[in-house]
Amino acid sequence: MIRAGIIGASGYTGGELLRLLSTHPQVELKAATSRQFNSRPVSSVHPNLKGFCSLNFSSADEALNQELDLLFLCLPHSLSMKLAGKIPESTRIIDLGADFRLKNVQDFERHYGRHECPELLEKAVYGLPELHREEIRDAWLVANPGCIATSMILAINPVAETIRDSKTAIDVKIGSTAAGRAVSADGMHAERTGVVRPYFLGEHRHLAELKQETGVENAMFAAHAVDMSRGILSTIHSFPKELPSFIEVFNAFRKSYSSEPFVRIVARKSPPYNLPDAKTTRYSNFCEIGFSVDERSGSLTLFSAIDNMLKGSAGQAVQNMNIMFGLDEREGINFPGFMT
Amino acid sequence: MIRAGIIGASGYTGGELLRLLSTHPQVELKAATSRQFNSRPVSSVHPNLKGFCSLNFSSADEALNQELDLLFLCLPHSLSMKLAGKIPESTRIIDLGADFRLKNVQDFERHYGRHECPELLEKAVYGLPELHREEIRDAWLVANPGCIATSMILAINPVAETIRDSKTAIDVKIGSTAAGRAVSADGMHAERTGVVRPYFLGEHRHLAELKQETGVENAMFAAHAVDMSRGILSTIHSFPKELPSFIEVFNAFRKSYSSEPFVRIVARKSPPYNLPDAKTTRYSNFCEIGFSVDERSGSLTLFSAIDNMLKGSAGQAVQNMNIMFGLDEREGINFPGFMT
Amino acid sequence: MIRAGIIGASGYTGGELLRLLSTHPQVELKAATSRQFNSRPVSSVHPNLKGFCSLNFSSADEALNQELDLLFLCLPHSLSMKLAGKIPESTRIIDLGADFRLKNVQDFERHYGRHECPELLEKAVYGLPELHREEIRDAWLVANPGCIATSMILAINPVAETIRDSKTAIDVKIGSTAAGRAVSADGMHAERTGVVRPYFLGEHRHLAELKQETGVENAMFAAHAVDMSRGILSTIHSFPKELPSFIEVFNAFRKSYSSEPFVRIVARKSPPYNLPDAKTTRYSNFCEIGFSVDERSGSLTLFSAIDNMLKGSAGQAVQNMNIMFGLDEREGINFPGFMT
Amino acid sequence: MIRAGIIGASGYTGGELLRLLSTHPQVELKAATSRQFNSRPVSSVHPNLKGFCSLNFSSADEALNQELDLLFLCLPHSLSMKLAGKIPESTRIIDLGADFRLKNVQDFERHYGRHECPELLEKAVYGLPELHREEIRDAWLVANPGCIATSMILAINPVAETIRDSKTAIDVKIGSTAAGRAVSADGMHAERTGVVRPYFLGEHRHLAELKQETGVENAMFAAHAVDMSRGILSTIHSFPKELPSFIEVFNAFRKSYSSEPFVRIVARKSPPYNLPDAKTTRYSNFCEIGFSVDERSGSLTLFSAIDNMLKGSAGQAVQNMNIMFGLDEREGINFPGFMT
Repeated sequence: MIRAGIIGASGYTGGELLRLLSTHPQVELKAATSRQFNSRPVSSVHPNLKGFCSLNFSSADEALNQELDLLFLCLPHSLSMKLAGKIPESTRIIDLGADFRLKNVQDFERHYGRHECPELLEKAVYGLPELHREEIRDAWLVANPGCIATSMILAINPVAETIRDSKTAIDVKIGSTAAGRAVSADGMHAERTGVVRPYFLGEHRHLAELKQETGVENAMFAAHAVDMSRGILSTIHSFPKELPSFIEVFNAFRKSYSSEPFVRIVARKSPPYNLPDAKTTRYSNFCEIGFSVDERSGSLTLFSAIDNMLKGSAGQAVQNMNIMFGLDEREGINFPGFMT
Repeated sequence: MIRAGIIGASGYTGGELLRLLSTHPQVELKAATSRQFNSRPVSSVHPNLKGFCSLNFSSADEALNQELDLLFLCLPHSLSMKLAGKIPESTRIIDLGADFRLKNVQDFERHYGRHECPELLEKAVYGLPELHREEIRDAWLVANPGCIATSMILAINPVAETIRDSKTAIDVKIGSTAAGRAVSADGMHAERTGVVRPYFLGEHRHLAELKQETGVENAMFAAHAVDMSRGILSTIHSFPKELPSFIEVFNAFRKSYSSEPFVRIVARKSPPYNLPDAKTTRYSNFCEIGFSVDERSGSLTLFSAIDNMLKGSAGQAVQNMNIMFGLDEREGINFPGFMT
Repeated sequence: MIRAGIIGASGYTGGELLRLLSTHPQVELKAATSRQFNSRPVSSVHPNLKGFCSLNFSSADEALNQELDLLFLCLPHSLSMKLAGKIPESTRIIDLGADFRLKNVQDFERHYGRHECPELLEKAVYGLPELHREEIRDAWLVANPGCIATSMILAINPVAETIRDSKTAIDVKIGSTAAGRAVSADGMHAERTGVVRPYFLGEHRHLAELKQETGVENAMFAAHAVDMSRGILSTIHSFPKELPSFIEVFNAFRKSYSSEPFVRIVARKSPPYNLPDAKTTRYSNFCEIGFSVDERSGSLTLFSAIDNMLKGSAGQAVQNMNIMFGLDEREGINFPGFMT
Repeated sequence: MIRAGIIGASGYTGGELLRLLSTHPQVELKAATSRQFNSRPVSSVHPNLKGFCSLNFSSADEALNQELDLLFLCLPHSLSMKLAGKIPESTRIIDLGADFRLKNVQDFERHYGRHECPELLEKAVYGLPELHREEIRDAWLVANPGCIATSMILAINPVAETIRDSKTAIDVKIGSTAAGRAVSADGMHAERTGVVRPYFLGEHRHLAELKQETGVENAMFAAHAVDMSRGILSTIHSFPKELPSFIEVFNAFRKSYSSEPFVRIVARKSPPYNLPDAKTTRYSNFCEIGFSVDERSGSLTLFSAIDNMLKGSAGQAVQNMNIMFGLDEREGINFPGFMT
């Protein structure tokens, strides 16, 4: 049994991680911390966990005093880097924040401000199993990718060379959990419901992860808030200098992903259910990837759907844990999602 | 008072038109037809109209036998062309279908099949007031634009020269009313709710309208179903050969639209409410247009939000009627929409 | 023209009132106040009002220094009572809060705490036009009813004698705007979406209004949050000692409401659209009332649907204004709502 | 391994059952039938099952020709009764339809029409584990309860004596999957979204199940459609002749359910998450039950939340299967649901 703890377990991501770890057959959950809810039952904040998690929230100090095999950090950026140095080597780390995702300190500081322990960046492994499975296996510190980054990189990686020097526009549709559990006026139900609006344009932090992992940079980026709580659909419009054929693209995806447990290629010819849908992947750890080659416009379009709370964060963290501890990679997260 | 009738008034578009005409101070609604609901009260099919519309549905023949100043046609394509020839010159026509939108018969037949009265195409005016106000004024037959076409053309028109030879991708997010009132398995609430999925890629019929009105062709096109009943947000990603400055784009939009009653330029620097939102235009006849110039990616992005049932169909039809009959263009449709 | 102002105009109710007054043909809106947004454009907070309201928010002092015919107060309870005493007799008042709704000081203090100017309670008129139209006409101070109270009273009033001594359970379903614009963790979109949960049981403040207006007290009360932003459906289950017949109930409703401009009796025999629906009344000032008499269970069930932001607050306030100033009662609020 | 088949597997309930059986560690799924989709891959109709179910739909005859330990029937009522007689004794049956739920033929025929094999009614066991676990264990034919019936019976059973002769009103809120996958005009997304409307009043078929299991009859019944795809919240308002105390009710529920794996008593004193919520039980097999005793109105109110697709149908069917085949009752269905 893996003795695990979560630092920062009261938010949405922490809650999903609690859910997954509480039902994981190889995990003994020893601690879940929260400043705000310290000493209160976990299930009073995450009511779906009644009967599944009998822990009370504790302080970070209490958690760090336990003997743990693995610690998940679910903290706002710049807090993990302060904490990581204090964690003994015998406790491995999966950081769901941004502090250790970027190898290049300049890239990090451009987006997030000063990095306080750049020496750890070398030790950290970028936790995208489809690209770094072997390094993850032996890592002490795994940096779980950003949710939009996961969505973009998995779609682009197999055709990165085709895309790299092409004009590319990334059009993301995303749900309300992506903004986290902190309260805000424009996040209230009455205002957020019904919107379809661009809320971020330009140099998104997750593009730095895309560049690091695929070499694709300078893509146009627009993120749109839509009316759902969970899910990302990324539509990646690119205009390659030489347009590949459908079968070439299909083969590239097959080659990359045919034995991947959590990537599905969805590129049938006729609707319905022929292309990725945020709904089909919701509540599951799957990434659905589809594509279209359109000679008329000279375009290659990629579609990528994930649940931002699962393949985009907590689910991928458990996938990484499974790899790090030599378990079946699907253990505890092999869940199909729902039709309705 | 304008004596008006609607052929095909039981669908969603017909219902919106009934609502607008029933509350329009200059219209006397004389007939609303429906095969399926013939002789039943209009308000039994459109329950929001209780107390506003006391008509019963009639047959098309009954409607055509009345003396009318104006007939709205809300029919599936290929039916209006059969009917139009039978309508006396004294009755003007606004066709909300596709039969008379395209001037070029080949373009029409490529998308819709054989055209049975091409001689009427010359007489028809493309009913986008922002481009054709003067011709609409005197038209006998106005072809009301498609909903996605309206959204695209209004965004692109002021910068059409910049976009025309650029790589361009049009990413549309659209609600469930756009599929009409015909029943379908994947349109049922339990299946349609929660989706964010591409449902149409490639050569959409409305692109032919875009080409006709702006000269822009060969754009990549992807339409996505999202979880709302009404609304379109079009995001138009383009990579101009020479990137204009923000102020140049702003001035182009100002020049085109500063005196337009139903176009709002929404391009503030900071969120929230700084860019078009389907929610802000929902239930109103407004089109919100915004844009972004991004030097990093060399891109000009346009955003365009409308309510597909209003500026995208019934509202624009009434706007055209107001112009045709010399009324204040805003009469009966100058409604602000809702914040929540 | 009525020179009007709004104290507390940045919330959801204030926003609806701004919308209605900005488009009302007989109103000149002179001031809208907000502490938080003082001096900012109204449309930066209520983006739907771009082009309809060019005011900037001002302070309450600035508003009170103007010559106004009418002041709307949209304040949390206990603030209106402090302000009302400072308002000159020449300015009439419609208070959308709770401070002047209850005639009986004990009833008020039981629910809301100490009342600071009980002498004004006598002057105040309970602003439910269907019951108090004549008093409203001449009132200086109108207390606009609570939203749930409006819904319950309109349904119960015509059959109050039948219900008064019966076992009665009131089951309310309500949207997220009812909680106001103040931010809260459980009001965030990701948490609030999808819920169907009881959130208030027992002695709700609005029951005191029900008792005052109909004599019905001691009803069981349960309010449920459901996934919509606007709307109330109240289902009132009662077990009369003597069960009236369908036609007796129908006649009682007819007698009360047949000439009411904003009450619709909806009690057809067969679905769909045969009973009140929150959707049909949403975005309109209508109250739909229906009922069922069930001999098997000995029950009379009443259904009442309103939009909490309109007939439940801002719309009813404008209806009261129209009455107070001798206008057509429907002026500016005679809007049918939407089918989809 | 249990060799299982599903007759009628293309609907929503069939899809959920496919999902549960495909991931159940003790089940080998041998056949899934559909007339409409015969020979097509199951995952083309239930896209969430890609990679989980590799079956193609077959005909009922093909399914019946296999050696099966268990057959699930997901058929419209009156079809199961025709089929059941043809199934060999060596194949046990769980019928998710209504044909074998009612012991009393008169009761059945009053609601559903002529019963063609009443002799099987004696053999059938009503498949509510909390009431009939021992009989289910040995049953050849289990009649899986109705979804609303499950919700009502579990709430009422522990206090049935208190409720039996009391005035009682049952107010149900339900999602769109409850109407099944058959297409209908008023079930289309654009019409169904946003509604809160009573759609059924009076003598609902599921009341006959309530009467059979608890003796409670003649309750007032009103079902309301609300905007969600899955879930039921039943609010049961009753006026007992002698009002029990909170602790008496609590003890009655504790006594009935303290060792039940899928019933949670949720009756905390303060919000949030203190009473049952359709959201908390959605996607899980749990039933949450809460209550309130209100001396002011003399009422006992019960709340019961389930997912109609799980504890209300497919999940409960698997729970019954687990019992029938001596497995851990929670096997394959012990899933916590989601917080967001």
